[in-house]
Amino acid sequence: MTLQQTTAPASASAPGSQIILTGDRPTGPLHLGHFVGSLRDRVTYQHQYRQFVMLADSQALTDNMDDLSKVHRNVLEVALDYLAVGIDPAKTTIFIQSQIPELTELTFYYLNLVTVARLERNPTVKAEIVLRGFERDIPAGFLTYPASQAADITAFKAGVVPVGEDQIPMIEQCNEIVRRFNRIVGRDILVEAKAFVPEVGRLPGIDGKAKMSKSLGNTINLGASADEIRAAVKNVYTDPLHLKVSDPGHIEGNVAFSYLDAFDTDKEGLAEMKAHYQRGGLGDSIVKKRLEGILQDLLAPIRARREEFAKDPAQVMKMLQEGTLKAREVAAATTDEVKKALGLSYF
Amino acid sequence: MTLQQTTAPASASAPGSQIILTGDRPTGPLHLGHFVGSLRDRVTYQHQYRQFVMLADSQALTDNMDDLSKVHRNVLEVALDYLAVGIDPAKTTIFIQSQIPELTELTFYYLNLVTVARLERNPTVKAEIVLRGFERDIPAGFLTYPASQAADITAFKAGVVPVGEDQIPMIEQCNEIVRRFNRIVGRDILVEAKAFVPEVGRLPGIDGKAKMSKSLGNTINLGASADEIRAAVKNVYTDPLHLKVSDPGHIEGNVAFSYLDAFDTDKEGLAEMKAHYQRGGLGDSIVKKRLEGILQDLLAPIRARREEFAKDPAQVMKMLQEGTLKAREVAAATTDEVKKALGLSYF
Repeated sequence: MTLQQTTAPASASAPGSQIILTGDRPTGPLHLGHFVGSLRDRVTYQHQYRQFVMLADSQALTDNMDDLSKVHRNVLEVALDYLAVGIDPAKTTIFIQSQIPELTELTFYYLNLVTVARLERNPTVKAEIVLRGFERDIPAGFLTYPASQAADITAFKAGVVPVGEDQIPMIEQCNEIVRRFNRIVGRDILVEAKAFVPEVGRLPGIDGKAKMSKSLGNTINLGASADEIRAAVKNVYTDPLHLKVSDPGHIEGNVAFSYLDAFDTDKEGLAEMKAHYQRGGLGDSIVKKRLEGILQDLLAPIRARREEFAKDPAQVMKMLQEGTLKAREVAAATTDEVKKALGLSYF
Repeated sequence: MTLQQTTAPASASAPGSQIILTGDRPTGPLHLGHFVGSLRDRVTYQHQYRQFVMLADSQALTDNMDDLSKVHRNVLEVALDYLAVGIDPAKTTIFIQSQIPELTELTFYYLNLVTVARLERNPTVKAEIVLRGFERDIPAGFLTYPASQAADITAFKAGVVPVGEDQIPMIEQCNEIVRRFNRIVGRDILVEAKAFVPEVGRLPGIDGKAKMSKSLGNTINLGASADEIRAAVKNVYTDPLHLKVSDPGHIEGNVAFSYLDAFDTDKEGLAEMKAHYQRGGLGDSIVKKRLEGILQDLLAPIRARREEFAKDPAQVMKMLQEGTLKAREVAAATTDEVKKALGLSYF
């Protein structure tokens, strides 16, 4: 893989279902949860779609105003994760959100197309407000981020946006803005997006919590060393009732088996192992040994590629700059159309 | 006056009280109320300050999404009014808000520095919400426009912002954002602004309503013809109890005298006329004749200049383009500082 950014036409002239947008908030290195939930798919998508991947640094600021350097620092880390898993800048346009001012212009205009009441009803926003404990002290940028997300999606005329189930209301709200805008200006300038919910569900944390999350400290990072992987697997939550090897074990809620389900390609061997575990006589250490082997095999080449790219951060930043320039051309063309349609064009 | 834009240094390196920002929403031609309330002062300010005057077309869109061409059309009209009253592009930087994307970038970041609850408490926003009958269907762009206004003010590091009394809370909110931003980034990048409330109060409408306003149809436009001025003065609200010439007349609430107070430079002659009117024996027609003479004298040269400039709209648009370029340089420099301080600088 080279670090040359895609030479695909830098326009959104063939919009809709051929264009896909995803992204991540650069607040920490990516982990196995990201890999299963989205990164793995992006490696496939880049052969099927015109793919844009956004490093959402401006959005990350929304609730990281108290730790500005964290966002800045993690842009490079996440870019390294992208390259390490095989997202290829020759096929995928990777860009940094804050470096495309047109996204804030679109956000600004979209804020006129959505009411405060509608934003307050957005279930995703509601859930996140509770999660973050904002109560009445919600930063305005947090309440309005569906408009910002609509800007990100529509700027590239993305017709497909892979999201988790909980993010579907965001896409619905985006499409409401799209319809309202198109109706006001009397033609279909913006494109509605389809939410694409991946089949593979969420990967649990190593501690058994529903979500693998950096803030819960229950992750296995994509750049994890062999020792870190070993230690993590050792700590993986299994079946607390499976005390003796001879006891029958439970599969449900057993993280070792959840991970094997996600990564073990020998489905037959895995089925046998599960049956053995359930009837008793199979110790956790055997299961974990299998899991560790699989994870070491999966992550070793990713880690190696990551280390290789990390040797030349300037080259990675250059790749991001090229991608950002390319993405900006597309976003600028859309913004130009939007502003012209609104009558905000003079010179 | 030439249409050459100012050659003052295009930087905000000497910020604070030397820099002044004002502007208008281009939703219709300007009238005598604007002249008294602000335009007249701007002609003076341009000799005392580095003056920026903004055509707030993006802000005007907030509640004109149903009539997009109105905003576009009136940018030229308002620019003609500026030139007609003597705002000199060689001394004042006149620019179009929507053509400076950096203003939306700053707005975007400032939205993280203000809570929804705080915006909802803003008395100006509250009053405008009632005035426009939004109730719960407040466009998000309307609730958040204090952040946008803070962007406009701080982009130019304006230390002085002339506003009506009712707009003081907007400046307070801007300064809260300034202080919060400077505290977060640990240095004084943004500049607090002082609200500057003009001594001369509001000019009433010709119908006696408190405010001269296009939507109330009680204005005398700066470009009014001699016949329009004559007709308007004829309709000026005086004293409904002053039925016969011999009756004593009232000055308070009498628009003819309010206008004479605002425009008659012969204060002694005016005092005599008021006394005569109050004791009886002076008919409205005499008062109105005096008023008409003064308004015709005031507006004739303004109308003539307006007509002269209106002959070459391309030249006026070129002036606006030059002003916008100049203003954009300043706004871009501030935005660059802001983004660097937030860690949003990579290449």
